[in-house]
Amino acid sequence: MQPVETVLRARRVATPDGTAARWVGVHGERIVAVEPYDTPVPAGARVVDLGVDEVLMPGLVDTHVHINEPGRTEWEGFTSATRAAAAGGVTTLIDMPLNSVPPTVDVEALEVKRACARGAVAVDVGFWGGAVPGNLKELRGLHEAGVFGFKCFLLDSGVEEFPPLQPDELEPVLAEIAALGSLLIVHAEDAEAIDRAPSAAGYRYADFLASRPRGAENLAIAWLVDRVRWTGARAHVLHLSSSDALPMLASARRDGVAVTVETCPHYLTFMAESVPDGATQYKCCPPIREEANRELLWRGLADGLIDIVVSDHSPSTPELKQLDTGDFGAAWGGSPRCSWGWRRSGPRPGRAGTTSTTSSGGWPRGPPRWRG
Amino acid sequence: MQPVETVLRARRVATPDGTAARWVGVHGERIVAVEPYDTPVPAGARVVDLGVDEVLMPGLVDTHVHINEPGRTEWEGFTSATRAAAAGGVTTLIDMPLNSVPPTVDVEALEVKRACARGAVAVDVGFWGGAVPGNLKELRGLHEAGVFGFKCFLLDSGVEEFPPLQPDELEPVLAEIAALGSLLIVHAEDAEAIDRAPSAAGYRYADFLASRPRGAENLAIAWLVDRVRWTGARAHVLHLSSSDALPMLASARRDGVAVTVETCPHYLTFMAESVPDGATQYKCCPPIREEANRELLWRGLADGLIDIVVSDHSPSTPELKQLDTGDFGAAWGGSPRCSWGWRRSGPRPGRAGTTSTTSSGGWPRGPPRWRG
Repeated sequence: MQPVETVLRARRVATPDGTAARWVGVHGERIVAVEPYDTPVPAGARVVDLGVDEVLMPGLVDTHVHINEPGRTEWEGFTSATRAAAAGGVTTLIDMPLNSVPPTVDVEALEVKRACARGAVAVDVGFWGGAVPGNLKELRGLHEAGVFGFKCFLLDSGVEEFPPLQPDELEPVLAEIAALGSLLIVHAEDAEAIDRAPSAAGYRYADFLASRPRGAENLAIAWLVDRVRWTGARAHVLHLSSSDALPMLASARRDGVAVTVETCPHYLTFMAESVPDGATQYKCCPPIREEANRELLWRGLADGLIDIVVSDHSPSTPELKQLDTGDFGAAWGGSPRCSWGWRRSGPRPGRAGTTSTTSSGGWPRGPPRWRG
Repeated sequence: MQPVETVLRARRVATPDGTAARWVGVHGERIVAVEPYDTPVPAGARVVDLGVDEVLMPGLVDTHVHINEPGRTEWEGFTSATRAAAAGGVTTLIDMPLNSVPPTVDVEALEVKRACARGAVAVDVGFWGGAVPGNLKELRGLHEAGVFGFKCFLLDSGVEEFPPLQPDELEPVLAEIAALGSLLIVHAEDAEAIDRAPSAAGYRYADFLASRPRGAENLAIAWLVDRVRWTGARAHVLHLSSSDALPMLASARRDGVAVTVETCPHYLTFMAESVPDGATQYKCCPPIREEANRELLWRGLADGLIDIVVSDHSPSTPELKQLDTGDFGAAWGGSPRCSWGWRRSGPRPGRAGTTSTTSSGGWPRGPPRWRG
């Protein structure tokens, strides 16, 4: 056996084969041994014994985190975001290309982000690039510089420096991304459907929910799926809220269309019926929907239709959430989540999809591996 | 009791309360009595006794029948269509506005159809009007002349004299139909999705199926639902084949969107896995899909999500079905169905959705009542 500096010993260790009593030996930054609980520990090792109700598990990977540094560091910077991630069990995160200024839409902006991150981060950090109108020629450079893929919006992103792709811009982007062997990740709500929905203004959650109907997600996803089908590219649907779309995603995949999908802890945890009026901390886009929808998302996770659970961690300053006025129309759409997301949507006794063999409850435990 | 000319006596009579042993008294064209089987029959009445395995039930209403007279009477005329309907248990049918020449897109064309029908029909016949590019101003006249609603296509209809509505034409049509209190019935497959799918040419059924992917239906239905939502009109999705769309239709209805949906006996009876290559008699649009899809359509019927079953009876001359070449690309897309549709997709023991209390198996037994 290699030298062991530290032993972590627990009755409940999440392993690929399920939960078991084990001790884990660590040397430097590497796991060097996983042994049955009662095996004698190496002499001289520091031993940390977990409580009987504590679970020892691998660090999680959160592929949907908005770190807004530079430009909006007061919303969330690398120092605070990566510490929140570590507190939530996340040891690797991938940063979204928007809400920082400049957004990560060319290599120069990526280098700015990397410079900010260097020395400030408490966990491993990777980067998504952005696909916006006019930056098609930047995608190759970003890909070669190491971004994990490219994010686009199909409607207003919430910040003016990261505009949405227009309908006729999506296919050229998909074609370029297919040529690169990269991945397009998509905020899929239909712009016209949202524009024509009732106003979100005011403090009633029901009005906010009606302002982001499921139809807007359903239409955007149906539209995206066909373009992925035609181009042979790989695409990923971000933060799925409308369970209506699960059957069409499933059948597209059976046809060989390379589309994956994620959902988030807030869609799995909360439900519209319980959101108090004026509680703008629950505002997100797409919105938290009804209990019946939440149960179908859990089903999609249990069935393997939903590939991963990620946080969509997207803080702002408290005043932007309009907690004083409770106005859902004016409030910022993001919330901090990576410190609590897994604790709320991870495995729970009796909950389908969260057995001991899927001990992370859909949260990735290793490097992202995208279908396709 | 009123005078009774004829008594129809059966051990299995379909009533609103289920199947029971009854006799039904008829005078002229009216049912004047429904009595327990053992009640003495009126003196002098002619008695017809059904066999123990025969069911006596009300006539069916088939709201989706193409009678191609005048213009293509050799495909199907009023005489042959209405006799086929009667043979299939259908006592009322509603005729589609296309495949006859002229199509039923103005009052003059409606009167031409009515003149052809007069004296030729064996069952009650009603008419749908057509919504095509340029005939918006004809809709009111057709409505006032008694059409049950208006059919449109979102892609090539198969006959050049009945072109599809372009995307920007749908909303004005829906607005006019809402103003009339009428109904739009829609062939919902997305034109671009079909154009860009692989070719249907050749004798392989798998190639034909791939030429009409579920995504084309899913996208067109998602797109239609939003426009119905925005206009407050009533619309009906014709001949649903893709079960993927059921959840989004269900959630739109929960939102109060006035959308209904039908499916057809061929989607409930056949499955792609069993269609022989070259068997172009199975060609229809949208296509017959996989067994798993068929089972979900049955589930949709049992759950009340699918409102009605109708035949989509649409014969042609045999040579147009390309039975000699077996070329799915060249074959006409319709088939005769109203003579056998109910017998194949009506109630079956053990089949969800077809209990004795839903004795018509989804086929309408009375005047169409559209939701909304």
